[in-house]
Amino acid sequence: SRYEYVKLFEQADQCLRNCWIVVRLDGRCFHKFSSQHRFKKPNDDRALNLMNHCGKAVMKEFPDIILGYGQSDEFSFIFKKSCNLFGRRASKLMTNVTSLFSSSYVFYWKNYFNDILQYPPTFDGRVVLYPSDKNLRDYLSWRQADCHINNLYNTSFWALVQQGQYSLPDAEKKLCGTDSGDKNELLFSQFQINYDKEPAIFRKGSILLWKENVVRKRKDVVVEHVDIIGDNFWTGNSQLLS
Amino acid sequence: SRYEYVKLFEQADQCLRNCWIVVRLDGRCFHKFSSQHRFKKPNDDRALNLMNHCGKAVMKEFPDIILGYGQSDEFSFIFKKSCNLFGRRASKLMTNVTSLFSSSYVFYWKNYFNDILQYPPTFDGRVVLYPSDKNLRDYLSWRQADCHINNLYNTSFWALVQQGQYSLPDAEKKLCGTDSGDKNELLFSQFQINYDKEPAIFRKGSILLWKENVVRKRKDVVVEHVDIIGDNFWTGNSQLLS
Amino acid sequence: SRYEYVKLFEQADQCLRNCWIVVRLDGRCFHKFSSQHRFKKPNDDRALNLMNHCGKAVMKEFPDIILGYGQSDEFSFIFKKSCNLFGRRASKLMTNVTSLFSSSYVFYWKNYFNDILQYPPTFDGRVVLYPSDKNLRDYLSWRQADCHINNLYNTSFWALVQQGQYSLPDAEKKLCGTDSGDKNELLFSQFQINYDKEPAIFRKGSILLWKENVVRKRKDVVVEHVDIIGDNFWTGNSQLLS
Amino acid sequence: SRYEYVKLFEQADQCLRNCWIVVRLDGRCFHKFSSQHRFKKPNDDRALNLMNHCGKAVMKEFPDIILGYGQSDEFSFIFKKSCNLFGRRASKLMTNVTSLFSSSYVFYWKNYFNDILQYPPTFDGRVVLYPSDKNLRDYLSWRQADCHINNLYNTSFWALVQQGQYSLPDAEKKLCGTDSGDKNELLFSQFQINYDKEPAIFRKGSILLWKENVVRKRKDVVVEHVDIIGDNFWTGNSQLLS
Ligand SMILES: Nc1nc2c(ncn2[C@H]2C[C@H](O)[C@@H](COP(=O)(O)OP(=O)(O)OP(=O)(O)O)O2)c(=O)[nH]1
Ligand SMILES: Nc1nc2c(ncn2[C@H]2C[C@H](O)[C@@H](COP(=O)(O)OP(=O)(O)OP(=O)(O)O)O2)c(=O)[nH]1
Ligand SMILES: Nc1nc2c(ncn2[C@H]2C[C@H](O)[C@@H](COP(=O)(O)OP(=O)(O)OP(=O)(O)O)O2)c(=O)[nH]1
Ligand SMILES: Nc1nc2c(ncn2[C@H]2C[C@H](O)[C@@H](COP(=O)(O)OP(=O)(O)OP(=O)(O)O)O2)c(=O)[nH]1
Ligand SMILES: O=P(O)(O)OP(=O)(O)OP(=O)(O)O
Ligand SMILES: O=P(O)(O)OP(=O)(O)OP(=O)(O)O
Ligand SMILES: O=P(O)(O)OP(=O)(O)OP(=O)(O)O
Ligand SMILES: O=P(O)(O)OP(=O)(O)OP(=O)(O)O
Ligand SMILES: [Mg+2]
Ligand SMILES: [Mg+2]
Ligand SMILES: [Mg+2]
Ligand SMILES: [Mg+2]
Ligand SMILES: [Mg+2]
Ligand SMILES: [Mg+2]
Ligand SMILES: [Mg+2]
Ligand SMILES: [Mg+2]
Ligand SMILES: [Mg+2]
Ligand SMILES: [Mg+2]
Ligand SMILES: [Mg+2]
Ligand SMILES: [Mg+2]
Repeated sequence: SRYEYVKLFEQADQCLRNCWIVVRLDGRCFHKFSSQHRFKKPNDDRALNLMNHCGKAVMKEFPDIILGYGQSDEFSFIFKKSCNLFGRRASKLMTNVTSLFSSSYVFYWKNYFNDILQYPPTFDGRVVLYPSDKNLRDYLSWRQADCHINNLYNTSFWALVQQGQYSLPDAEKKLCGTDSGDKNELLFSQFQINYDKEPAIFRKGSILLWKENVVRKRKDVVVEHVDIIGDNFWTGNSQLLS
Repeated sequence: SRYEYVKLFEQADQCLRNCWIVVRLDGRCFHKFSSQHRFKKPNDDRALNLMNHCGKAVMKEFPDIILGYGQSDEFSFIFKKSCNLFGRRASKLMTNVTSLFSSSYVFYWKNYFNDILQYPPTFDGRVVLYPSDKNLRDYLSWRQADCHINNLYNTSFWALVQQGQYSLPDAEKKLCGTDSGDKNELLFSQFQINYDKEPAIFRKGSILLWKENVVRKRKDVVVEHVDIIGDNFWTGNSQLLS
Repeated sequence: SRYEYVKLFEQADQCLRNCWIVVRLDGRCFHKFSSQHRFKKPNDDRALNLMNHCGKAVMKEFPDIILGYGQSDEFSFIFKKSCNLFGRRASKLMTNVTSLFSSSYVFYWKNYFNDILQYPPTFDGRVVLYPSDKNLRDYLSWRQADCHINNLYNTSFWALVQQGQYSLPDAEKKLCGTDSGDKNELLFSQFQINYDKEPAIFRKGSILLWKENVVRKRKDVVVEHVDIIGDNFWTGNSQLLS
Repeated sequence: SRYEYVKLFEQADQCLRNCWIVVRLDGRCFHKFSSQHRFKKPNDDRALNLMNHCGKAVMKEFPDIILGYGQSDEFSFIFKKSCNLFGRRASKLMTNVTSLFSSSYVFYWKNYFNDILQYPPTFDGRVVLYPSDKNLRDYLSWRQADCHINNLYNTSFWALVQQGQYSLPDAEKKLCGTDSGDKNELLFSQFQINYDKEPAIFRKGSILLWKENVVRKRKDVVVEHVDIIGDNFWTGNSQLLS
C-alpha cells in the first residue's frame, strides 16, 4: 500500500560479529516489588528460584544461550559468539529474551509463592557485546562480585536488625567504613554466623548451563552456585569458551 | 572493582530528538499459540480484549504514550515527541514496554479465557522513529490498512470454510486474485454477510488513547475501534499531534 | 576468497529518512594553523574566501546540498531531506564531503595566499540529523550566533591590542564581563569603529546557495553574507524549505 | 544561546572497546581520475608512491595507527585495540584520517607527478571493527588477495593489449575463464614475463609500519612490499598483535 514506505524507517541494529552477545535484564523498581510481596530479607529463596526457573525457560527456548547468571532481580544470558539468531538483530534478541522471562515470571509465580501476585512485574533488558573471552569472564566476575558485596552487606545489615535489634540507621552506621573482613568477623563474633556457610545461592548467585543428561540422553539446563571468577569453573567447563 | 570496566562496553542508543518514538511489539509464533489455545477463527474477541487490557496497562505505566494501536498479535505504542523517559534510550523503551505487556498477558489471561494458559507467550519489540506528523499518521494507516486487508481476507476465507464447506485449499483458490470489492460481494451474496456490519474491533483494530473522565476528574485510557486513516480522527483528537 | 567474510563486519549507518542531513566540518588545530600561516587577526579574508571556494566545490560535486554555511574554520552543508546520495550512508556522506573540502583547500590555496602552504590541513567532519525545519533553522542560527559572538569579541579584543596598545592579558581583562552593547560602545567610543559597518563576511559568515544564473541559464552557487536567523532570508528563499 | 539545544541532536558513535579499529579509504571515481591524469597502465608507480607518502603522513599524525596497507586507490589504517584517540568516536576517526590523506594527496602531488593536478580528488572513508587478531589478519589478507587478483589480471590484460596488440575486447575474451596458473603461464610463454619478478609494490601492495631508526634513535614509518597473508610477517613483527 501507499503507506508501506514507513517500514523503511526501521534502522539496522545487527550485533558486531565474532563478539559475545550478553543480554542482561533487571527488575524495574524491585525495591517496591519485593517489599509489596514481602520478600524475605535479605534473601528470598522463593524469589531466586523463580528467577532461575524463568532463566531456564529462556535458555530452553533459545539454545544459542550457553550460560545464564542470575542474582537479585537480574539475569544475564550469554549467547555464543557465532550466534545468528534473528540475524543478530539486537532489538530482537533483547526483547524476545526479556519478554519470555517476564511472562514466565507470572506464569511460574504460583509454583514458588503461596501469596498471590499483586501486579505484573516489568524487567528492562539490554544487549552488551564483548569481543574477547577475557572481557566475557570479567563481565561475569563483575556481576558475581556485585552479588558477593551486596549479599555480605545485606546479611550483616539484617543480622544487626533482626537478631541484634539495631534500628535501621544504627545498623547502617555500624557497617559504615567496614571492609569484607570486618563484616565476616562481625557476623561470626556477634551472631555466630560463618558467612561461608551461608547458602551458596545467596553468596554466589546462580549459574545456568547446559549439561548432558546421561539418563535421558539429551542436554538439560542445570543450576549451580559456584565461583565463576577463578579459573576452576572455566577449566571444568572448557566447552563454554571453545 | 577491577571488573567494572566492562560496564564501559555498553553503547549509547538514545533516540533522535523531536521524533515520534514508536514501539511495536508482535507475538512470537502466534500462529502456533493461537491454534494451541483454540483462538476463534478468524477473530477471537477474547484474545483481542486481552491484548487491549495489556495495552492499557502499558499506557498507564508510561503516560508519555499518547496512543496505542492493536490488531492481531501486535501492538504499537506512540510516545510523544518530547518524551524523555529513560533519556530516550531505545533499549530501555522497547524492553520495558515489551516486558510489561508480556507479564500482563499472563496476569490477565484468566480474565478473558476459561481455558488455562498452556505456556508463557513471547513478544518481540522494536523502536522506530518518525520525524513528521505525516510519517506517524502514515505508520498508523499502514497498520490499520494491514488489519483491514488481513481481516477481509480471513473473514471471507473462514466463511467459505465454516459456512460454505470449502476445503482449506479450495477456499484459498476461490479467493486467489480477488480484490476488496470481490470479497465484499462474495460475503454478501453467498453468506448474507455485510462486511461493514462486522464488529469494528475486527475491521478497524483498537485505538487506545487518553480521555478526560469527567466523573472521576482524571484521565483514563479509552478504547475505540474507528478509522484512523482519514482526517476525522485527527481533527477530533487534535491534542494528539499538537 | 576465504577472507571475504570480513566484509560482513561493516555496520549499516543509514541516516533516518525525512530528516535534514547536516555535515559540519571544522579545522583541526586551526589555532596553530592560522598562526603558522600568519592569518590576519581577528579575521583573514583570504582564509574565509578560500573556505568559501572549497564550500562551493563541495556543493557543485554534491548538488543535493541546498545550503552551505561557513565561518571561522568550519563549514556546514545541508542536504535536502529527500537526499538519497550513497543511500544516506552517514560514513560516505561525511567522508566524501570532508575529503573534497580538504583536497580543495590545498588545491585552491595559491589562489588566495601568496605565502606557501606549509603543511596539509586536516578537518574533522560529522553528520547531524534534524527532523523539523525549525530544528534546521535553529541549527543555522546557532552557528551564525556563534559567529557573531566570537567576531564581536575578537574585533574588540584586537582593537584594544592593535590600536589601543593593550597587552593581551589587559585586553582580556578589559572585556571580561562585558555584554554585546558594551563591546559595541567600546569599539565606537574608543576606536571610532561602527561594528555594524564591519565587513558582513566577518559579522554574518558566508551563506552558499544555488541561484539561477539567467545569463548562463543554469544554477550557480552564490555566496551571501546576510542574516539567516530572522525570517527574511527564509521567506526570500522559500524554495529551501519547500 | 537559545539555539544551543541543537547540539544535543548529535549522536554518540564510540567504537566498541577492545576491537581493532580499521579505517579504510578509497578514491572516488578513480577510474576517471587515473585516466584523466594519464596514470600508467596497469600500475603507475608515481601514483602508488604518492599514496604511500600520504599514508605515512597520516600515520605520523596519528601514532595510534600501528599499520597501514595501500593498494590501487585505497588505503587501510589499523588503530591499536586500546586506542582512545577522540574517545574512539567513529566519525572523528574516519574523517580526520580521510581529510589528512586527501589534503596530503594534493600537497605532495608535485613530488611525484610532472603533470599538473587537474582537480582535487575525493576519497571516501569508513570504520570497520574487528574483535580478534584472526579477523584483523583475515581483513588484511582480503585486501592483499584483492591486490594480487586484480594485479595479475591487469598485468595480463595490458600485456595482451600493449605488447600483444590485442584489442580491449579481445584481451578480455582471452582472459575470460582463466585461473591464476593460466595467467602466469600466458605471461611467461607469450611475453617472457615472470610474474613473480614484477615489482613487489604492484604484486603485494604497500605495508607501512613503525620501525626503530637506530641512527636517529626514534621510530619511523617504513614501507614494505611483502606477503602479509602467511605467518612470516606476523612472527617477524610480533609487536603488532601483542
Ligand atoms: N527482600 C528482598 N529484596 C530483594 C531480593 N532480591 C532483590 N531484592 C530487591 C532489593 C533491591 O531493592 C532490588 C534490586 O535492586 P535494583 O538496583 O535492581 O533496584 P530496583 O529494581 O529497585 O530499581 P531499578 O528499576 O532496577 O533501577 O530488589 C530478595 O531476595 N529479597
Ligand atoms: N485464530 C486466530 N488467530 C489469530 C488471531 N490473532 C492473531 N492470530 C494468529 C494468526 C497469525 O497466524 C498470527 C499472527 O501473524 P504473525 O505474522 O505475527 O505470525 P506469527 O506470530 O506466527 O510469527 P512471528 O513470530 O510473528 O514471525 O497470529 C485471532 O484472533 N484468531
Ligand atoms: N587569525 C585568524 N585565526 C582564525 C581565523 N579563522 C579561524 N581562526 C582560528 C582561530 C581559532 O583559534 C581557530 C578555530 O577555533 P576552533 O575552536 O575550531 O579550534 P581549533 O581549530 O584550534 O581546535 P579543534 O581542533 O577544532 O578543536 O581557528 C582567522 O580568520 N584569522
Ligand atoms: N591506470 C591506473 N589506474 C589505476 C591505478 N590505481 C588505481 N587505478 C584505477 C583503476 C580503477 O579504475 C580505479 C580503482 O577502482 P575502484 O573500484 O576504487 O573504482 P573507482 O574509484 O572508479 O570507483 P569508486 O568511486 O571507488 O566506487 O582506480 C594505477 O596505478 N594505474
Ligand atoms: O514479522 P513480519 O513478517 O510480519 O514482518 P516484520 O515484523 O516487519 O519482520 P521482522 O519481524 O523480521 O522485523
Ligand atoms: O540500574 P543500576 O543503577 O543498577 O545500574 P545500571 O543498570 O547500569 O543503570 P541503567 O539501568 O540506567 O543502565
Ligand atoms: O566500492 P567497491 O565496489 O569496491 O566495494 P565497497 O567499497 O565495499 O562498496 P561501498 O563503497 O558501496 O561500501
Ligand atoms: O570542537 P569544539 O570545542 O568547538 O566543540 P565540538 O566541535 O562540538 O566538540 P567536538 O569536536 O569534541 O565534537
Ligand atoms: Mg539499571
Ligand atoms: Mg532492578
Ligand atoms: Mg538489580
Ligand atoms: Mg515480525
Ligand atoms: Mg507474530
Ligand atoms: Mg503479527
Ligand atoms: Mg570540535
Ligand atoms: Mg577547529
Ligand atoms: Mg572551529
Ligand atoms: Mg567502495
Ligand atoms: Mg575507488
Ligand atoms: Mg578502489
